[in-house]
Amino acid sequence: MPKISTKALNMPSSPIRKLVPFAETAKIKGKNVIHLNIGQPDIETPESALNAVKTADINVLEYSHSAGFESYRKGLANYYAENDINISKDEIIVTTGGSEALLFGFSVGLNPGDEVIIPEPFYANYNGFATAAGINIVPVTSSIEDGFALPSIEEFRKKITEKTKAILICNPGNPTGNLYTTDELNKLGALVKEKDLFLFADEVYREFCYDGAKPFSVINLKGLENNTVLIDSVSKRYSMCGARIGALISKNKEFMAAAMKFAQARLSPPTYAQIAAEGALKTPQSYFEKVTDEYVQRRNLMVDGLNKIKGVKCPKPKGAFYAVAELPVEDTEHFCQWLLEDFEYEGNTVMMAPVGGFYATPGLGKKEVRIAYVLEKSELKKALICLEHALNEYPNTTI
Amino acid sequence: MPKISTKALNMPSSPIRKLVPFAETAKIKGKNVIHLNIGQPDIETPESALNAVKTADINVLEYSHSAGFESYRKGLANYYAENDINISKDEIIVTTGGSEALLFGFSVGLNPGDEVIIPEPFYANYNGFATAAGINIVPVTSSIEDGFALPSIEEFRKKITEKTKAILICNPGNPTGNLYTTDELNKLGALVKEKDLFLFADEVYREFCYDGAKPFSVINLKGLENNTVLIDSVSKRYSMCGARIGALISKNKEFMAAAMKFAQARLSPPTYAQIAAEGALKTPQSYFEKVTDEYVQRRNLMVDGLNKIKGVKCPKPKGAFYAVAELPVEDTEHFCQWLLEDFEYEGNTVMMAPVGGFYATPGLGKKEVRIAYVLEKSELKKALICLEHALNEYPNTTI
Ligand SMILES: Cc1ncc(COP(=O)(O)O)c(C=O)c1O
Ligand SMILES: Cc1ncc(COP(=O)(O)O)c(C=O)c1O
Repeated sequence: MPKISTKALNMPSSPIRKLVPFAETAKIKGKNVIHLNIGQPDIETPESALNAVKTADINVLEYSHSAGFESYRKGLANYYAENDINISKDEIIVTTGGSEALLFGFSVGLNPGDEVIIPEPFYANYNGFATAAGINIVPVTSSIEDGFALPSIEEFRKKITEKTKAILICNPGNPTGNLYTTDELNKLGALVKEKDLFLFADEVYREFCYDGAKPFSVINLKGLENNTVLIDSVSKRYSMCGARIGALISKNKEFMAAAMKFAQARLSPPTYAQIAAEGALKTPQSYFEKVTDEYVQRRNLMVDGLNKIKGVKCPKPKGAFYAVAELPVEDTEHFCQWLLEDFEYEGNTVMMAPVGGFYATPGLGKKEVRIAYVLEKSELKKALICLEHALNEYPNTTI
Repeated sequence: MPKISTKALNMPSSPIRKLVPFAETAKIKGKNVIHLNIGQPDIETPESALNAVKTADINVLEYSHSAGFESYRKGLANYYAENDINISKDEIIVTTGGSEALLFGFSVGLNPGDEVIIPEPFYANYNGFATAAGINIVPVTSSIEDGFALPSIEEFRKKITEKTKAILICNPGNPTGNLYTTDELNKLGALVKEKDLFLFADEVYREFCYDGAKPFSVINLKGLENNTVLIDSVSKRYSMCGARIGALISKNKEFMAAAMKFAQARLSPPTYAQIAAEGALKTPQSYFEKVTDEYVQRRNLMVDGLNKIKGVKCPKPKGAFYAVAELPVEDTEHFCQWLLEDFEYEGNTVMMAPVGGFYATPGLGKKEVRIAYVLEKSELKKALICLEHALNEYPNTTI
């Protein structure tokens, strides 16, 4: 039997997958599992997106341009202009999800063996794309104590080696829910400039900023036009994760020309999904206001509720739809499995993501869970009640 | 300014792209360019595919399972059963086009630096996926003299080194139009078994076999269950290239488990496209009969016409919708550019793909062009007339 590659052997599986078999068993046993573990929102996709597909007049479903429909890229450029981000259609490659943009970005910016610095905890699939591209992730640790603010520039500086080619940030952050300040980003930009690195920014949660906070895109860092690369996606913005439409954006012409060769090899991003995404550009502002409003209510309910539970600590997130909470347990991986295997309250249990797998440094985040507040408030209430009871019952609680 | 990776610098651009700017200029100058250069058929997508999307009842466009909808995989397994290919839904990962299946296959089967042997000329984007995966392609040359039949097993054997991990064939072939015989495949299978390699087979043109020929899938090679990997796609089968739905298929459990980790990192294949592909499974046999009939007519018209032109030699393809012709010129790259830049006949000119870029061995195929007979017969007739005049006028004709 032929052997698979060591690259494939080293390919990490997502930390949120480990619990899936336990959740399945729990469901078979009749438990109602409340899913706070994944970022699949229950919010409706805008009608303009769905209708664009329904009414599309197609006879031959053809490949699109490898960079995506020109009309869609023009529309996207408008969308960015409205968000104070000044880019032209030719600085955009439409990708198959933000996922593909990340893989292209890693492949164009880094050679196998090169290093990208990422504040941890971070979106766990970055590990998968790094392994696929053969590059190494070097973490800089952020802390729940200050709400996962950007680590100091000194911390970044310490991690820079000959091999460092890029820094990647996620803003607003998954799993942290943190939003970096303009000041933090300016400081990071100065370091990137000094060391001549790429600065990748995963801004797929741009629309989800709360309490009047405004996101600041790395594209607006002055004098960094050749360094900054924006990773974007319609998945979360319009609750259309299944479309698989993202974008890779940079003003660096050499970078984009190389990325186009990767785009051309795979021919084109999905056509129906581009039609939907182009339709979604017509989504009225009222949609976003309603959605933000809903998420703020969910966040407040969830985070305030968590902080009222004895021994639980949860900084209030400023963006995205995740919160990281520290629980009074030694090992959330064990606790989360126990919740599915050995616990129920009024027929319910809760599935959350242990945050250990979102850190690259072994041993960190063992007391933390990520909670995606993507469900209706009534469900979130049930989840809070469950969790409070569970922490009382759990044999290994540390308080 | 930060440097892009050498991997990105080495990323090949597709040979059929080089001529695009010349075609654009030709169009601006008012010439009608007859496109025989790309495999984008004009055939209508089956109604059942288009209707499935139109009538889909979607509120939240969610991620699908990373391996693709279970219902679609079940349907696919049925489709294969009808084509005498026995595989279960769990041996299928739905991918974003055959393109993604190729990238996954290379990444799982080979480490960076490893070698895959491919009969040349071959589909040029294999080069892109190989570069992306960091692996090396080792060509075995097939020849227009015998219609690009499988090179002898001895030729393959000579190319096997410590680094060889896989052989990749395309059957029916792009660009050759050749269909391998069961006998050829059995012999290749024996070598694969002896050397314990993976055998990747790109069978995306399965439906396009002519003159009663039947395609034989590598999945049916006895005793090679752990070696064979099938790459498939709905792009050509249902003329729905823009859907971006393919499949990676193998009975090797370890291989598929590793491929799943790549699939999970990118979350899911496109949802709308899966709905379309599932709808397409209901395409009646009459559709395929009509399409095959049309392609046979186009092929006969084109190939017979080509062979009537003085100095032109074109073996009759048994499958796919491409033909490779040898022209009485020294360099088809120059000739094809000349056609766009300096030639027209009654307002028309022809765009074809020089085959040099489909060979990995430098210097081969310089007299060959690939012709995609994906247009209506009236257009093909015009193209033939054009070509005949062009070869008379071309200053560097060798006869
Ligand atoms: C931070 C972050 N980046 C990128 C992605 C990838 O999303 P997609 O490929 O659907 O655009 C996700 C999905 O959850 C995410 O959370
Ligand atoms: C031989 C071959 N394999 C694979 C592909 C990839 O097609 P897709 O990604 O659309 O499935 C093509 C497209 O032309 C092809 O000709």
